[in-house]
Amino acid sequence: MNISKERLRLQSLKDKIMTAEEAANLIKDGMIVATSGFTPSGYPKEVPIAISKRAEKENLKITLYTGASVGDELDGTLSRANALIKRIPYQTNESIRNAINSGKIEFVDLHLSHMPQMIRYGFLGKIDVAIIEAVAIREDGGVVPATSVGNSPVFVEMAEKVIIELNESHPLELEGMHDIYTPKNPPNRKPIPLTKVDQRIGGNYIPCNPDKIAAIVLTNRKDSVRPLAPVDETSKKISEHLIEFLENEVKKGRLPKNLLPLQSGVGNIANAVLKGLLDSPFEGLEFYSEVIQDAVFDLLDSGKMVIASGTSVTPSEEGLERFYQNIDFYRERIILRPQEISNNPEIIRRLGVIAMNTAIEVDIYGHVNSTHIMGTKMMNGIGGSGDFTRNAYISIFATPSTAKNGLISCIVPMVSHVDHTEHDVMVVVTEQGLADLRGLSPKERAKEIIKKCAHPDFKDALMEYFNKAIEKAGLTHTPHILEEAFSWHTKFLKEGRMI
Amino acid sequence: MNISKERLRLQSLKDKIMTAEEAANLIKDGMIVATSGFTPSGYPKEVPIAISKRAEKENLKITLYTGASVGDELDGTLSRANALIKRIPYQTNESIRNAINSGKIEFVDLHLSHMPQMIRYGFLGKIDVAIIEAVAIREDGGVVPATSVGNSPVFVEMAEKVIIELNESHPLELEGMHDIYTPKNPPNRKPIPLTKVDQRIGGNYIPCNPDKIAAIVLTNRKDSVRPLAPVDETSKKISEHLIEFLENEVKKGRLPKNLLPLQSGVGNIANAVLKGLLDSPFEGLEFYSEVIQDAVFDLLDSGKMVIASGTSVTPSEEGLERFYQNIDFYRERIILRPQEISNNPEIIRRLGVIAMNTAIEVDIYGHVNSTHIMGTKMMNGIGGSGDFTRNAYISIFATPSTAKNGLISCIVPMVSHVDHTEHDVMVVVTEQGLADLRGLSPKERAKEIIKKCAHPDFKDALMEYFNKAIEKAGLTHTPHILEEAFSWHTKFLKEGRMI
Repeated sequence: MNISKERLRLQSLKDKIMTAEEAANLIKDGMIVATSGFTPSGYPKEVPIAISKRAEKENLKITLYTGASVGDELDGTLSRANALIKRIPYQTNESIRNAINSGKIEFVDLHLSHMPQMIRYGFLGKIDVAIIEAVAIREDGGVVPATSVGNSPVFVEMAEKVIIELNESHPLELEGMHDIYTPKNPPNRKPIPLTKVDQRIGGNYIPCNPDKIAAIVLTNRKDSVRPLAPVDETSKKISEHLIEFLENEVKKGRLPKNLLPLQSGVGNIANAVLKGLLDSPFEGLEFYSEVIQDAVFDLLDSGKMVIASGTSVTPSEEGLERFYQNIDFYRERIILRPQEISNNPEIIRRLGVIAMNTAIEVDIYGHVNSTHIMGTKMMNGIGGSGDFTRNAYISIFATPSTAKNGLISCIVPMVSHVDHTEHDVMVVVTEQGLADLRGLSPKERAKEIIKKCAHPDFKDALMEYFNKAIEKAGLTHTPHILEEAFSWHTKFLKEGRMI
Repeated sequence: MNISKERLRLQSLKDKIMTAEEAANLIKDGMIVATSGFTPSGYPKEVPIAISKRAEKENLKITLYTGASVGDELDGTLSRANALIKRIPYQTNESIRNAINSGKIEFVDLHLSHMPQMIRYGFLGKIDVAIIEAVAIREDGGVVPATSVGNSPVFVEMAEKVIIELNESHPLELEGMHDIYTPKNPPNRKPIPLTKVDQRIGGNYIPCNPDKIAAIVLTNRKDSVRPLAPVDETSKKISEHLIEFLENEVKKGRLPKNLLPLQSGVGNIANAVLKGLLDSPFEGLEFYSEVIQDAVFDLLDSGKMVIASGTSVTPSEEGLERFYQNIDFYRERIILRPQEISNNPEIIRRLGVIAMNTAIEVDIYGHVNSTHIMGTKMMNGIGGSGDFTRNAYISIFATPSTAKNGLISCIVPMVSHVDHTEHDVMVVVTEQGLADLRGLSPKERAKEIIKKCAHPDFKDALMEYFNKAIEKAGLTHTPHILEEAFSWHTKFLKEGRMI
């Protein structure tokens, strides 16, 4: 495969071009390997597949760091080949999830904005090899990332060696969409100068000493993007409640007419909420989030949204095509930043981001579980939800009121794992309604959440628990019956239904 | 009582001088009243006592906002007089705690850095009256705060009326120690320009439209400061483990020789840790915290610490005397800021603060409970521990390994309330030892915490729970037996011992 001079601009690196198998040979047993990729987008594919093939035949186990979730070519093949010892900080792949929940892989579930600085501080060991998907390599060795930035800047900076997957399936026009700013370590860190969503504060490539580039692998394999389900009735209702709430906040003078920058988690509910904004009265919307999905293109196309900042573009298959066909339009309206900046508490609090994330379950006092199934099994990880929630202008959690065809209530007496505490959650919304928890004590919250958010099938049982807890524990700050707090979960595990 | 022209510099306000009883008459039933005060320091005393007296005779109930905890003259008298409907954001007074845990007062437990902006955003209602303890009132109406800043700037800004308690027990030399900076609301907020602990970024008084000042009450009643217990053996060992850990971080190159700015919670363990630093090899220390207590004076006196920034000075009785006798020395070395700045995520993360806070209990997976006794009763509140922990360079939680003469293990299978999640806690230390959790998965953390931190009396039982959980739940991400997760707590409630 030949590579054009636009893709590989430093000709002296030409002799580093090799096959994925040759590049994979740079990986030794026990190494810490760090890759590009944030939500299945902009992650390396060929070299991980080649590493997996080696691992099937020889003793080769690595620790894997990424930006966030990556495609099956990386998390899937490596975990199925038993090639992973440890994995940080987020995943969504079924194979790796099964390996994590059967003790084959140690998973460390970190806030996405914390990881890059923990690496730079030396808290997570020395990175041996970084594998980065790129659109081009500059004359100075600088790397032009693909559809995600994620942790690639810190990985390239801190790794001993760098392998580049130069991917020609991405158009060269991606160059210029990225904005790479790297904070210094304390005590020399300065204010991050970002004050507007559409502002650029860094360069448009990842600086890299060309001597560190140990291999270049050419490919045109596309990201395994995920299809989005059509908006269902539940998500639509959640979206309607949310938009009504936001309209009311504007009326009350607590939000400007064009709102404040929006953050939205990934998935079908998030997609529905964003789609709902298309038909809303809001204009001049801004998006300051992690992941840019199809609905954001719709909002940008409609003119309702004027700018979108994230750390990755992760559309559906059709969305990707649309993105590339209109890239000149989107280049003016989309900025991709390192996750250290997209998820940075300093920026999120300064801009006043409205954070909308999904919960696995919420309890009557407003604690949120976003990671664990029945308290023990890892789903995906906390991702950026903590970065945004804790620092948001308004923090919102959405969930359907029930799961598993109504056998599970997503509003429970006590969540089986806490990722967001009562101190951080301002609004809970289900298809049943929206609970505004601002300024409420735990007991006030319980009444509001049960009344507004719980499914009718579970409302009485939740009130019964709450009243019984008051009877038993007294009118304490947070009444609970510790013996029964998880009885809904244990009943589900035994009988397949919560009540 | 006469007042000097140095204390009341705007002579036109002289006719606003009145008795506490007269000032208390400005308070109407149902009002939101917001006062100065942060840890029993710099809070108003005379007017609250007068309000309490009214409330004993008539129907008068208010909502009370403060900076953090305040003295008995405020939280104590008002709660004993049944004068409080709701209280935000933190308290340490026994009377109010009892009222909170018997349903007489609704308490909202907020991150201390979140409250001021929530007020400015309009999320916590309109403040009717602010009562602020002051050292002096300037010619322009500006208020010179006393020994704490807390939320006073935002309270004065947002309140309809302001009552000033002009307290002559505080020397005028306090003027100039404060540094008042107020961030704008999004979307107009700018980077907070603070990049060094010793930097001043604002004015030295709280701006106030003199027309808002409805009453001035003269007093010389001192703060009810709290005595500190002498350093006990347990706290001393915790301090030793911590200092050894910090020394090792310096050796490994993960911390500079003079460390990074230290934050320390309040109380005896915190005091012991700071005292331990006196005999440590560290020089040029900086303190970026909330509360400045006696041990900080020792460190400043010794020259080991060069600067201390907080939102309040809360010494013991002897400490207060020492502070005032040497105020010229301390004025050069202490800066008091609004809690919106002392606890600001932006600044804490930028400076790389080392956060040291105390836990009520920690579980084997690294979740921390810092607010609830046996899951239901409020102790004090989360205070600033969340602001610092989540944004720290290194986040540390300290607790004795046992409580109640060894009947309670402070390391438990599952904490009965989560205030700091596994995603936020880097180090746990007890008198038994220190567990460094950075980069560890939940199961790795469990082994480390049980081995290093648990008391020998509880070690086997904890390992037994952990192993049994693996047996029952399998090697999932976070093995738990939900039926037994709180069995230690329920046993204690029934039998007075955890195992």
